[in-house]
Amino acid sequence: MEKVREIVREAMRLGNEDPRRIVHAFKVGLALVLVSSFYYYQPFGPFTDYFGINAMWAVMTVVVVFEFSVGATLGKGINRGVATLVAGGLGIGAHKIASLAGPTVKPILLVIFVFLQAAVSTFVRFCPWVKKRFDYGILIFILTFALISLSGFRDEEILDLAESRLSTVVIGGVSCILISIFVCPVWAGQDLHSLLASNFDTLAHFLQEFGDEYFEATEDGDIKEVVEKKRRNLERYKRVLDSKSEEEALANFAEWEPRHGQFRFRHPWKQYLAVAALLRQCAYRIDALNSYIDSDFQIPIDIKKKLEEPLRRMSSESGKSMKEVSISLKKMTKSSSCDIHVLNSQSACKALSTLLKSGILNDVEPLQMISLLTTVSLLIDIVNLTEQISESVHVLASLARFKNKKKSSTLFEKPDSRFIGRDMPIKSYENGHVVRILHDVDKLNNIDNSRGQSSQESCNHVATKIVADDSIHEKHEDGEIHVHANFLEDVDGNVMVNGRV
Amino acid sequence: MEKVREIVREAMRLGNEDPRRIVHAFKVGLALVLVSSFYYYQPFGPFTDYFGINAMWAVMTVVVVFEFSVGATLGKGINRGVATLVAGGLGIGAHKIASLAGPTVKPILLVIFVFLQAAVSTFVRFCPWVKKRFDYGILIFILTFALISLSGFRDEEILDLAESRLSTVVIGGVSCILISIFVCPVWAGQDLHSLLASNFDTLAHFLQEFGDEYFEATEDGDIKEVVEKKRRNLERYKRVLDSKSEEEALANFAEWEPRHGQFRFRHPWKQYLAVAALLRQCAYRIDALNSYIDSDFQIPIDIKKKLEEPLRRMSSESGKSMKEVSISLKKMTKSSSCDIHVLNSQSACKALSTLLKSGILNDVEPLQMISLLTTVSLLIDIVNLTEQISESVHVLASLARFKNKKKSSTLFEKPDSRFIGRDMPIKSYENGHVVRILHDVDKLNNIDNSRGQSSQESCNHVATKIVADDSIHEKHEDGEIHVHANFLEDVDGNVMVNGRV
Repeated sequence: MEKVREIVREAMRLGNEDPRRIVHAFKVGLALVLVSSFYYYQPFGPFTDYFGINAMWAVMTVVVVFEFSVGATLGKGINRGVATLVAGGLGIGAHKIASLAGPTVKPILLVIFVFLQAAVSTFVRFCPWVKKRFDYGILIFILTFALISLSGFRDEEILDLAESRLSTVVIGGVSCILISIFVCPVWAGQDLHSLLASNFDTLAHFLQEFGDEYFEATEDGDIKEVVEKKRRNLERYKRVLDSKSEEEALANFAEWEPRHGQFRFRHPWKQYLAVAALLRQCAYRIDALNSYIDSDFQIPIDIKKKLEEPLRRMSSESGKSMKEVSISLKKMTKSSSCDIHVLNSQSACKALSTLLKSGILNDVEPLQMISLLTTVSLLIDIVNLTEQISESVHVLASLARFKNKKKSSTLFEKPDSRFIGRDMPIKSYENGHVVRILHDVDKLNNIDNSRGQSSQESCNHVATKIVADDSIHEKHEDGEIHVHANFLEDVDGNVMVNGRV
Repeated sequence: MEKVREIVREAMRLGNEDPRRIVHAFKVGLALVLVSSFYYYQPFGPFTDYFGINAMWAVMTVVVVFEFSVGATLGKGINRGVATLVAGGLGIGAHKIASLAGPTVKPILLVIFVFLQAAVSTFVRFCPWVKKRFDYGILIFILTFALISLSGFRDEEILDLAESRLSTVVIGGVSCILISIFVCPVWAGQDLHSLLASNFDTLAHFLQEFGDEYFEATEDGDIKEVVEKKRRNLERYKRVLDSKSEEEALANFAEWEPRHGQFRFRHPWKQYLAVAALLRQCAYRIDALNSYIDSDFQIPIDIKKKLEEPLRRMSSESGKSMKEVSISLKKMTKSSSCDIHVLNSQSACKALSTLLKSGILNDVEPLQMISLLTTVSLLIDIVNLTEQISESVHVLASLARFKNKKKSSTLFEKPDSRFIGRDMPIKSYENGHVVRILHDVDKLNNIDNSRGQSSQESCNHVATKIVADDSIHEKHEDGEIHVHANFLEDVDGNVMVNGRV
């Protein structure tokens, strides 16, 4: 009784985790019933002589070929169909050649053919790229060749056998493919896309929460809640660490899929893997970082606090940029507000190094610094990786022809996208912050037509200054960009400006 | 022409990489020829009436079931056999029940049975542990059930169909299993065992070389050679990072395998995965460490040099302990000389912290320290992981019933293994090193019978002192242990002593 209840609970869990599993189970049942009725009724129907016992190949094909995603089903179906066709042809050829040699030599020749074919094909299956895409096809090739060439029939009967085997396989395969595409399709490509976006979300969440966890965990008395929260975070990002094989399988299936939704036939699935690999590198750093949250209780809180501001900003801005990437993936639009956050995290890095240079830690013992500086160095790694990731996502966006976002975003699209900056101190912040407002050109033209021409140079000038600084960039709802600059240094930051601000 | 040459080269590479692949290809050919001749000749032989067209199931079974390793072949063969038996029985039952309902309702009932069975079985395949071990069995279950229950034969003919299907599947499966076990067998368990040992080797190599790479790379003018060496190291340990799926597959197959060589039927394959997971964690740290070798040129060499001695020892001793584990795995003997190296690396950690406490880095800027201290913290992580790994390997050794090494090793087996220490300054080292020699009890008894009784206490006393120190332990060929102690502190290291020295 307890066992039954447990099984039901497990089944509920599997169904809740992904309700498409239940739909898939019914789809397989449906395909099998369709092909089975054909198999069941054919002894009495017009096909009797033609298909005979071979009709069971149709049933077999359905059971073996029907996979969860469209891509996997298509891949297996095409593999099976093509392999049956080729092996059938070769098998007939082998049978004919052997027949020429006379009845005593024939079986010997046939056995030699089968042996050689099986040995060579089996060896070819070890080749990595064959294994990846055509493993199943080669299996079916070995099988069909052996069955056809060895069958003890006369020559015309063997043709019938090959033909009926091929047509039943095609009937089964096509039923699978049609049902898998037209009845609640599960696209591997869509899954890969969502998986990547959700992995970005997961890491973004961790990084945005990191500041609080790192700097407040030791203060907070409510340890239970903190531990629980950590545990959840932990489990979530661990999923990113282990997602490699899932991503590779999905990308492999996705390459078989036709155009669907916003994905073309030759969607850049490989670039998804490239982005995912960088993201996983970042997750490894996060894994290490997480171990320092746990083990960090020995650092006095006042030492930690000295570096709180830049460290918080480094992690939260990296997190925000990942959040932006996740949103832009979900909407399939180009976005460069993530670049702003990358810039912000980089300027926080600079602020951190200025802080360290200023000798703020001079009176701290090196032993106490180990864990603190390791955290620092991991965060620096993460900031650098975030930049690489953002570049890699830009490549993905242009390869996959993501749409441009309207208005406020096109402002930041490309190095040559036209925008303009004006120095305009509005409020007086503490520490002598300078505030600039960047308008987009259209808006500005309405206000000030005369400056339209010089916008490009002026913007470059402003950008050069901003990039090299420790500054905070904020995007307001009305599309204006407020830049709060802390440090103004005279550095030639030209390289970094390109395609950034 | 160029293409053909490339294909030949690729084939040579695949064959050289693992010559068992070529043997496997021939084995598949052999099995297929054996079963095929049975299939080819049976229309004229005594089996004609019995098997008929169903003989092709034997050929199919061989092609589908024969896998590279014995474990995989056994798993698939058993899955296929059992599934055919169960599904055949249920299919006959379903057919009989449907027959009772009369000729009009029969096909409807049958189709409903097939639909339900296919849907439920397909859903069950999503369950992770079913997918892991019985996925293929359920596939065959769906297939056989559909084929048997839907076949348009009369009741006695259906029994024949089920029986001949089962017997041909058994013939095919048994041929595969016999050939795979008795002709140059490839044991998944043996492969997993060797993979783990070679992964230990790889990391040991990196750690033993790390000191030279880290401290000499900047001095050495011959950059080309260094870079080339690094690249090779890099590629080697990267293999450890990605070995997870391979290990899991091998462990999964290995569980099907019978006793072979020194592996029992229920060898603790799960513990192999546990050790491998720890080792992979260590490889992640090494990955990070490797990035610091590359990026480390900005640290002045004189700052690095200050910490050279303990850092070198930490990495080389961790490396040595992994090398010992690898050797003990290869020989399948228990070894605790790895524990000595773990202890040495821990005492190097202590020496490092003493060095840091002494203020050796006080005049270094924190900014310059980031990368150095990150290296330090990664090495500390590695030392800690090495200890965990060594414990995990001890668990493996006792679960897998590794043999005890003779003489010099039993000395260090367990906390209660009897040994004894005497203070015995032999040579005067620099820095006032103290040298102790630990004899094993038997040896000592020959020299000094009167101290036999108090050996246990005395050894604990000595051990307590040693563990807490910065000390180097060396094992000489004659089974004597020389302990060179640098620092002697009065610490209660009881916890660490247990089962260690």
